[in-house]
Amino acid sequence: MNKIEHIGIAVKSLKESNSLFSKLFGEAHYKIEAVESEGVKTSFFKVGDNKIELLEATTKDSPIAKFIEKKGEGIHHIAFSVDDIEAEIARLKKEGFVVLNDTSKRGADNKLVAFLHPKTTNGVLIELCQDIK
Amino acid sequence: MNKIEHIGIAVKSLKESNSLFSKLFGEAHYKIEAVESEGVKTSFFKVGDNKIELLEATTKDSPIAKFIEKKGEGIHHIAFSVDDIEAEIARLKKEGFVVLNDTSKRGADNKLVAFLHPKTTNGVLIELCQDIK
Repeated sequence: MNKIEHIGIAVKSLKESNSLFSKLFGEAHYKIEAVESEGVKTSFFKVGDNKIELLEATTKDSPIAKFIEKKGEGIHHIAFSVDDIEAEIARLKKEGFVVLNDTSKRGADNKLVAFLHPKTTNGVLIELCQDIK
Repeated sequence: MNKIEHIGIAVKSLKESNSLFSKLFGEAHYKIEAVESEGVKTSFFKVGDNKIELLEATTKDSPIAKFIEKKGEGIHHIAFSVDDIEAEIARLKKEGFVVLNDTSKRGADNKLVAFLHPKTTNGVLIELCQDIK
């Protein structure tokens, strides 16, 4: 794993949180992107070489809506960038981690993504992501 | 804020989680450090330019013990590195954030640290940290 690509934060209102995080970082978000398949609208902030992704649910059965209902707003996942996501999925499965999808799928920000089940990672939802070239 | 300095993860057993995260990153932790004033023992992993800090409570009234009791194991805080922590505390207070300590205090990993109350940051406990030179 190369670095923390981004941290995903579940929020109720993207508009209000964009304003809040702009004040925090002293800089506005640089893009908004919807991922319809996941039922989310996202915004991205840059902090050095890392990003913060805010996630707002766009449907009632979105994973983000369920997360907020259960735990409230807060950190939803950590994403690590990898060079070869399929190789990394295979390696982690061998190590005993539960990967939520057998192969990568298309995520936000022009990435292939896969998630590790938090029950095998100390309660932390971990995303692997690889740039689509 | 310069970058994500580290992500803090609350764990029940540092020993078991060190083994788990070694498998995840394909590399062992590079140091263990106790912060007696906070009632925690920590271990650090490198992932590119970022770090992951695992935190185990060493006392029953440690903030980490209380966090795990309430929420279970998982992501505890995000730390951002700053050049001038006192100036950043002053700037953020002016912006309406609640800073948990009026001036910075000594934290793990040779840093001055300060925390923002999660109620003003979408449920995210945010740490500011500055290297002690």
